[in-house]
Amino acid sequence: MGNSFGKLFKITTFGESHGAGVGVVIDGCPAGINFDEEFIQLQLERRKPGQSKITTQRKEEDLFQVFSGVFEGKTTGMPISLFIPNSNQRSKDYGHIADKYRPSHADYTYQEKFGVRDYRGGGRSSARETAARVAAGALAQLMLNHYGIEISAYVSQVGDLKLEKSYKELDLTKIDDNIVRCPDSDVAEEMIERIDEVRKNRDTIGGVVTCVIKNVPVGLGEPVFDRLHATLGHAMLSINAVKGFEYGSGFDGVSMLGSEHNDEFYKDDKGDIRTRTNYSGGIQGGISNGEDIFFNVAFKPVATIMQDQKSVDQDGNETIVSGKGRHDPCVLPRAVPIVEAMAALVIADNILLNRTRKI
Amino acid sequence: MGNSFGKLFKITTFGESHGAGVGVVIDGCPAGINFDEEFIQLQLERRKPGQSKITTQRKEEDLFQVFSGVFEGKTTGMPISLFIPNSNQRSKDYGHIADKYRPSHADYTYQEKFGVRDYRGGGRSSARETAARVAAGALAQLMLNHYGIEISAYVSQVGDLKLEKSYKELDLTKIDDNIVRCPDSDVAEEMIERIDEVRKNRDTIGGVVTCVIKNVPVGLGEPVFDRLHATLGHAMLSINAVKGFEYGSGFDGVSMLGSEHNDEFYKDDKGDIRTRTNYSGGIQGGISNGEDIFFNVAFKPVATIMQDQKSVDQDGNETIVSGKGRHDPCVLPRAVPIVEAMAALVIADNILLNRTRKI
Amino acid sequence: MGNSFGKLFKITTFGESHGAGVGVVIDGCPAGINFDEEFIQLQLERRKPGQSKITTQRKEEDLFQVFSGVFEGKTTGMPISLFIPNSNQRSKDYGHIADKYRPSHADYTYQEKFGVRDYRGGGRSSARETAARVAAGALAQLMLNHYGIEISAYVSQVGDLKLEKSYKELDLTKIDDNIVRCPDSDVAEEMIERIDEVRKNRDTIGGVVTCVIKNVPVGLGEPVFDRLHATLGHAMLSINAVKGFEYGSGFDGVSMLGSEHNDEFYKDDKGDIRTRTNYSGGIQGGISNGEDIFFNVAFKPVATIMQDQKSVDQDGNETIVSGKGRHDPCVLPRAVPIVEAMAALVIADNILLNRTRKI
Amino acid sequence: MGNSFGKLFKITTFGESHGAGVGVVIDGCPAGINFDEEFIQLQLERRKPGQSKITTQRKEEDLFQVFSGVFEGKTTGMPISLFIPNSNQRSKDYGHIADKYRPSHADYTYQEKFGVRDYRGGGRSSARETAARVAAGALAQLMLNHYGIEISAYVSQVGDLKLEKSYKELDLTKIDDNIVRCPDSDVAEEMIERIDEVRKNRDTIGGVVTCVIKNVPVGLGEPVFDRLHATLGHAMLSINAVKGFEYGSGFDGVSMLGSEHNDEFYKDDKGDIRTRTNYSGGIQGGISNGEDIFFNVAFKPVATIMQDQKSVDQDGNETIVSGKGRHDPCVLPRAVPIVEAMAALVIADNILLNRTRKI
Repeated sequence: MGNSFGKLFKITTFGESHGAGVGVVIDGCPAGINFDEEFIQLQLERRKPGQSKITTQRKEEDLFQVFSGVFEGKTTGMPISLFIPNSNQRSKDYGHIADKYRPSHADYTYQEKFGVRDYRGGGRSSARETAARVAAGALAQLMLNHYGIEISAYVSQVGDLKLEKSYKELDLTKIDDNIVRCPDSDVAEEMIERIDEVRKNRDTIGGVVTCVIKNVPVGLGEPVFDRLHATLGHAMLSINAVKGFEYGSGFDGVSMLGSEHNDEFYKDDKGDIRTRTNYSGGIQGGISNGEDIFFNVAFKPVATIMQDQKSVDQDGNETIVSGKGRHDPCVLPRAVPIVEAMAALVIADNILLNRTRKI
Repeated sequence: MGNSFGKLFKITTFGESHGAGVGVVIDGCPAGINFDEEFIQLQLERRKPGQSKITTQRKEEDLFQVFSGVFEGKTTGMPISLFIPNSNQRSKDYGHIADKYRPSHADYTYQEKFGVRDYRGGGRSSARETAARVAAGALAQLMLNHYGIEISAYVSQVGDLKLEKSYKELDLTKIDDNIVRCPDSDVAEEMIERIDEVRKNRDTIGGVVTCVIKNVPVGLGEPVFDRLHATLGHAMLSINAVKGFEYGSGFDGVSMLGSEHNDEFYKDDKGDIRTRTNYSGGIQGGISNGEDIFFNVAFKPVATIMQDQKSVDQDGNETIVSGKGRHDPCVLPRAVPIVEAMAALVIADNILLNRTRKI
Repeated sequence: MGNSFGKLFKITTFGESHGAGVGVVIDGCPAGINFDEEFIQLQLERRKPGQSKITTQRKEEDLFQVFSGVFEGKTTGMPISLFIPNSNQRSKDYGHIADKYRPSHADYTYQEKFGVRDYRGGGRSSARETAARVAAGALAQLMLNHYGIEISAYVSQVGDLKLEKSYKELDLTKIDDNIVRCPDSDVAEEMIERIDEVRKNRDTIGGVVTCVIKNVPVGLGEPVFDRLHATLGHAMLSINAVKGFEYGSGFDGVSMLGSEHNDEFYKDDKGDIRTRTNYSGGIQGGISNGEDIFFNVAFKPVATIMQDQKSVDQDGNETIVSGKGRHDPCVLPRAVPIVEAMAALVIADNILLNRTRKI
Repeated sequence: MGNSFGKLFKITTFGESHGAGVGVVIDGCPAGINFDEEFIQLQLERRKPGQSKITTQRKEEDLFQVFSGVFEGKTTGMPISLFIPNSNQRSKDYGHIADKYRPSHADYTYQEKFGVRDYRGGGRSSARETAARVAAGALAQLMLNHYGIEISAYVSQVGDLKLEKSYKELDLTKIDDNIVRCPDSDVAEEMIERIDEVRKNRDTIGGVVTCVIKNVPVGLGEPVFDRLHATLGHAMLSINAVKGFEYGSGFDGVSMLGSEHNDEFYKDDKGDIRTRTNYSGGIQGGISNGEDIFFNVAFKPVATIMQDQKSVDQDGNETIVSGKGRHDPCVLPRAVPIVEAMAALVIADNILLNRTRKI
């Protein structure tokens, strides 16, 4: 239970941090999509560890294999299975954490829920699982290409360093111009410095990813429970370390008056019905209205720090958990393609759902 | 599609603002729950319009009927159908909005998506639908009583008037002591004044509901996609007018360092494993850890204002939408039981799911 | 759990034999279907008790109400709730069966599974629940009218009285020309006599319903688990008293050689690819091929007989169950619209699913 | 869509006949099950080609790999991914069938539905997919071992050669004593001869598999749509080449009178409530009653015959399809473990569902 996402473009991920690998089965992907392996690999590269000095220095290749569902370069409508072998499986001693509960990790809750757990590198609760999501999400993005839909995520906050500009004032083609994935080069530099400082202190820090989806057709979203933003929120909150989600005017919108917040409709030159402002974030009544969709995703500081921390072991005895290995001081730069992937999966699914709503 | 919520304790709601009524079918409710009609009715009263001077003055009785699934005062394990007839069905002229798109309402998106819409009072997109959720959620709360789980929601912000105290500093038994449902009587008074002022200006205002869930057993939540907070977020974001969700440290947590944010484990006097702080908000790795779960839900100002607004009609012609009827200047006081209901549904569902995870 | 059927055109039924009524919520019905109330009522009349001398003499009107999802004569894409009040709710003494287990009924298993049961008239296990299916299925048939798809079921066997002609040799417009719903008037007469004889002996008898679906588009069915015939089989086996399902060549086909059984392809005058024979029953590889779909559904003799039977009570004590009331000697004539309804629901659902399989 | 089965013990299969391999992800398998690799491999051996003179002579090893969800010999509650590489992937010329529609195969319907198809060996429509089911089903059987539930399937008919004895008169430990998997050695010998004869004529033949499930707890099955036999029927009808399903008295039961067919309840020496006869096939009202569950599954003669057949190509032109390669003259012996696997999956799923039905 819980390892599937989507209703029609449905993915099921599997795999643990230190097992054979992680993978995904996509059931419901329409036939006839150009299966662009390069693009999928590219998205995996953007997520993979070891890509810059501000991410973990672990090296993993994250090369994916296709097991099924693709023939002569196209999806066939059959389930597509993608697999990313774990390259970092060296025989390592996990004795030091096998029976200890790392603070703010999933060790305790997994142990209690299942009565057993794969303690090697966090097992299934490791963010390594998100590699499978990125692969599946990249496939969803390939589907969205057929509709001209564009998804761009970027880092808009690290700690209390906040990019004050709205996405409209930014050049979203510059996201990958720096290692922190913030399209404003000045703020990016500050962010990189901040992360580097935190890293040197053997600590970690959180941040915010902003995501923008352009050219979404009118009509996506399935009220009342699967309002488009509710499904987007579900998707984002399912990513490791996420603590909050807001779209459009978000938490700031609560302080506004209705007369300020309402988005006035007008007819544009092309004859399309548009809104002059977009506090709605492109979604009204849970359904896309054709304006840009945008939302923020809050990530906590990652729990693994390179410091000694007090904790207990499985029997409740006091113990010390020591930080070892190579870990991310800040998960944000690597979270960007994950946010894009989950957004793409939600939009792809809703495109299919929406095909069924009129006779 | 989209009108069901939950996997095992599954609800499907139906009904429109000005049709026969709204209702819900609950499939998967365990047999043997005491069906306390009074409690269900009580929750409906807390949501119903016309309950105080700061809510809409529309009068609706919201008396519910039981069509199935209950026998001799107990649930039977069969689907339970609850129905709340619309008492306010007087023949009203909707000509003035039948072909107009009210700003920041669902009129335009429903029309585009379905090619047809019930324009009377917003039809299905009306918040009237949440009456059905409250009834179903109250039943879920009756189930949670068997586990001693307590859910309390309250208004923690109206506009920029923010209750600065944490839930731990508040007496949650006082939530219903005032009409705005804020347990701090001083702040409550200010909030009531603010709403009244907004009402007089024929405007509306947003706010935040905070929800606390106590006595949750360890182990609820289904990673990786149905992490407990992801499902809670989905539930909350599916409520009309909600723009954001955060749990535990939330958006503020992004500015913290890992060394500050991590919750230290210890063994308490009863021998239970606990955490000293609770930035995790009672959920680690997507699974409840036994600490209090708490989260915030942001509501935008409601879109219906008693003012003239520019807009377009179905053909794209410019038009004026005039506010008519009796509407809420602030949805927050009535949103409290809705948030509780959705939270109860998520917890009930996860209790059932969790029964299946060990041999 | 278990009270929903369908993936996109999804129904959830509720209600018991002697409660307020039975009903159904249909979620996922496309917007824009002409909601022909007369046709729905007609199908309910074909199922209702008391319609002829060979059905139960109980009188129930089975008039349905529409609670939601229909506006100005069309479906709106919102959930449609239909309700059929129980007219036969007179205060009856159920003391004689409240703690007895009627042989081959669901009394024992429901009691064991749920620890409680509504013993009045069988509660939820009563075939009265199928009225809700017929209403929902009639709506599905209204959707199929848009595609020209025709569904005809008829009684092809009563006891060992078997209609030897294939559906191709029959005039399917004559199904309702007689009370047993067999389109061959000579065999129909014999069947009526047989049922009447069984009725006089205070006994019951089983039979077979054959169903034919014409004008099905090529491409319906979702391998590998939701092959079209697997879903049809599931639907049929979910009807009260059904013991078997076979399609195309069915159980007789097992004795054939592959060289006899294979259906040769050819191109017809219109340029369509067709098969010369149709042992496949219109389904190949789990997907409709455009030929007629046909299948048989086996119904056991109904368990309620007007005779004294040995049994046990809830405590395991020996007891006698006496037949009382007015019951069907043979369920087949009333089963015809139920089979049609379930078939229509499967086809409607698969039409929607099939819209999502190509880019 | 369509590649998943089960609600809580949920499998998703993937893979084609001539791709990298076939596999399955099992999500919802409880933690703590002993992962007996040998047993899983054993069931795969019983299904694999080339095991005897009456099956296809293709050689495939069908050795499975575990990618996830198992740690230190036990299931962890995480998704379990099993993969069976295709060993028989030699570069073969499929030119002769790439654009031809083999009679009674899925070529035409897949092409029409998806607009593309993997023609190599039938692609996804190949019975090779069932290897993944057998692996998953074996895992379900390992779960059922914890409950003492035993599933035995055997061949009860080949062509018109029918084993007249009921399963009660047979020694079910002898099923694998002969290559046709019929526990009556005399009938088995006749069956083997018959199949051999058919094989020599380059033809194929159908048959029936009977399955018996013993020691099923009372209470499994979820009315009204997921009656236990409806789900079993769905499962069986989803297997390649299956044309019919009947349980308990089945199609023969239709000729019986209610007074003959009803199963009398009594209390046995142990104090259990039992039935004297078992026409119900262990299922009453859709719920298991503790008696043996038994059912029959009809398989058509396989469509691939070693003869020339008339057909059309993709453009509708007349063509000849020639039988090539090594194929099964009769699928029945290899179908036995597939039927067992699907039955185990249904029972395992229903055990989990049933844990949620009482407070």
